[in-house]
Amino acid sequence: MQAGKPILYSYFRSSCSWRVRIALALKGIDYETVPINLIKDGGQQFSKDFQALNPMKQVPALKIDGITIHQSLAIIEYLEETRPTPRLLPQDPKKRASVRMISDLIAGGIQPLQNLSVLKQVEEKFQLTWAQNAIISGFNALEQILQSTAGTYCVGDEVTMADLCLVPQVANAERFKVDCTPYPTISSINKRLLVLEAFQVTHPCRQPDTPTELRA
Amino acid sequence: MQAGKPILYSYFRSSCSWRVRIALALKGIDYETVPINLIKDGGQQFSKDFQALNPMKQVPALKIDGITIHQSLAIIEYLEETRPTPRLLPQDPKKRASVRMISDLIAGGIQPLQNLSVLKQVEEKFQLTWAQNAIISGFNALEQILQSTAGTYCVGDEVTMADLCLVPQVANAERFKVDCTPYPTISSINKRLLVLEAFQVTHPCRQPDTPTELRA
Repeated sequence: MQAGKPILYSYFRSSCSWRVRIALALKGIDYETVPINLIKDGGQQFSKDFQALNPMKQVPALKIDGITIHQSLAIIEYLEETRPTPRLLPQDPKKRASVRMISDLIAGGIQPLQNLSVLKQVEEKFQLTWAQNAIISGFNALEQILQSTAGTYCVGDEVTMADLCLVPQVANAERFKVDCTPYPTISSINKRLLVLEAFQVTHPCRQPDTPTELRA
Repeated sequence: MQAGKPILYSYFRSSCSWRVRIALALKGIDYETVPINLIKDGGQQFSKDFQALNPMKQVPALKIDGITIHQSLAIIEYLEETRPTPRLLPQDPKKRASVRMISDLIAGGIQPLQNLSVLKQVEEKFQLTWAQNAIISGFNALEQILQSTAGTYCVGDEVTMADLCLVPQVANAERFKVDCTPYPTISSINKRLLVLEAFQVTHPCRQPDTPTELRA
């Protein structure tokens, strides 16, 4: 292991960055934040320096143990393998499969379709509907899946990687004015998670790069 | 473990199904294929029966050990944990991180943007450009990443989950007429993988549901 604190390249509002912030908080890993503003200067993720770090030009990226990892779930799986306590994946392989299935559904099946770079390619007047459709179609499936996997949280009664994906995605749903009343399971799990400290301190309204008017 | 062969719900042309077919072939797991035609009858994935199996209305889904898993990477991780030989993830956590980063880049950053259900939402005359843009922007990043991770294959000299994502994505690139000459690393890894038996027998041109005119 290399000396020095891990560095998280993050944007306060990025749901993928938030997933990783929660993992770092739950595992009690001290880190520095380098904010990458996805809007300012035409998007700081397009700078030469950042592209050298992540050719996908996306946050988050985590410098840790002498390597740089991007893709939020790959980062979380690495943290889980190298800092296993508290665990974010259950011990039982079938339950681990449920956690990964839900995580991939959100991280691969919903978020990529409503992220900034994709919405920019859609005509402005259709952007909101586009984002809402992606979220609604994913949440219809997710609500049904959670009805068979959930306990207190997404899979059973322990906080897992799936929960780290759920809360930021529900926040996106609210930003895009999706009516969440058809999703009572999603909504109640989200509510139970939001009161936990690791979800609170990592919230977009409490980051070093949160603009003053959005702070809480 | 429950008796009976695993059942893979698959579509010959689906790149996500192909990933799983390669994993099953490499690990020597005998399975039955239930073809789900994504085009016929307005899309068999929308049938009531299939929706009960996968509320996301997507292939692949795998019935195995008494559970049904969807999301291709979640399926592959489950196979890896329950049938570890030959391994599809390296032992070193840093290399595992590279494998998952590349897999997520393809499975979350490229494929979802060019899949059928998304293209249907784009005006027909823009569909090809939309798909090409998604692939080109992902491949630009991937080519750069592979230059530092690749040996014979995507990460080092062993076939990993990343390779299971690469080959089907290159096939999609070809279908969408993306010029792959700017991607010499991607192209040469793809060529080395395509000659392996597990990639050959699982190829879209050799599936139970491959239409006669596309067979090879």
